[in-house]
Amino acid sequence: MAEFIEPVEHLADMFRRLEGVGKKSALRMAFSVLDLSEESAKEFSDAILDVKTKVRLCSCCQNITVDELCPVCSSPKRDRSQICVVEDPRALAAIERAGVFQGLYHVLHGEISPMHGVGPDKLKIKELLERLKDGEVAEVIVATNPTVEGEATAMYISKLITPLGVKVTRIANGVPVGGDLEYADEVTLRRAIEGRRNI
Amino acid sequence: MAEFIEPVEHLADMFRRLEGVGKKSALRMAFSVLDLSEESAKEFSDAILDVKTKVRLCSCCQNITVDELCPVCSSPKRDRSQICVVEDPRALAAIERAGVFQGLYHVLHGEISPMHGVGPDKLKIKELLERLKDGEVAEVIVATNPTVEGEATAMYISKLITPLGVKVTRIANGVPVGGDLEYADEVTLRRAIEGRRNI
Repeated sequence: MAEFIEPVEHLADMFRRLEGVGKKSALRMAFSVLDLSEESAKEFSDAILDVKTKVRLCSCCQNITVDELCPVCSSPKRDRSQICVVEDPRALAAIERAGVFQGLYHVLHGEISPMHGVGPDKLKIKELLERLKDGEVAEVIVATNPTVEGEATAMYISKLITPLGVKVTRIANGVPVGGDLEYADEVTLRRAIEGRRNI
Repeated sequence: MAEFIEPVEHLADMFRRLEGVGKKSALRMAFSVLDLSEESAKEFSDAILDVKTKVRLCSCCQNITVDELCPVCSSPKRDRSQICVVEDPRALAAIERAGVFQGLYHVLHGEISPMHGVGPDKLKIKELLERLKDGEVAEVIVATNPTVEGEATAMYISKLITPLGVKVTRIANGVPVGGDLEYADEVTLRRAIEGRRNI
């Protein structure tokens, strides 16, 4: 016998399909929905359908958008000679939030991970190469995560693009600003020292 | 400007209305919905409406149910002389899971909390008193949480029911089985010693 009545169990199962949601959180959220007003529940239900129907990928950079082109690609103010390659729209948003980059982006929608059966063909790499054809792009900055998969993805992309005569760079590794050296791991410290600059 | 496109921000806002969901989790979940298949998103959307439309309160014990009476109240095997009073359906499920109680339940749907503006009138206490009228119930076991609010609720109920000639008991406090005395707090240890039994 299920522990809870079917509609609650079923909704909890739906929550569990989302990234990072465990059994207990899923149940807590399902019960929370019970406490919503009818209107809020309807709004919630519609919002789920809306993201699937209204959101699509920018035909240029593959970022999520509601229009044909995302706000970055359609902005006349951006530097079209630089493309920053990120794994997902959240990484893009983090860089935009920092306001430190004025070029365009390219969203891969994943990282190469043989462990999880994700090969290069599952990523938006073909679309990236297509953007380099007209020669307008001078530099591709690979901003995938500093993890095994992110590094592998960066290496793969670098090997494809370098022969095209486009400069490929990688974001720096080092000690996070405001962080404490005492808590930095060995690899980060090694990278921080290797990447030292004159002051 | 919103950091993310409107449909994603809106869905994240919906997730934030759920208990225990913070800003970052809400966004992570909204992005997760984007990764669901169309069918899964539709199923999720429907499941939210379903809990609101299919789930109602048992006309007897106020537990959530899809029928007029919940499975416990409609079971001929339960001892109808005992009512265990709990705060919410999750507490009821925890006791059922343990399989240690054969009587009926009563779900209050909250606890008295002046801090949060929840008075006794917001709880299903009237419905509990109604159930005691026919004299079939000999004992009410108050299983609200061992917190300030749970204790206050227990005291309030006890004062209402005792004059009706029904025995009112409270679940025991003590050291959790499998726990370590070293990590038990002072109040729990005091209750554990006060509640000591002969062996």
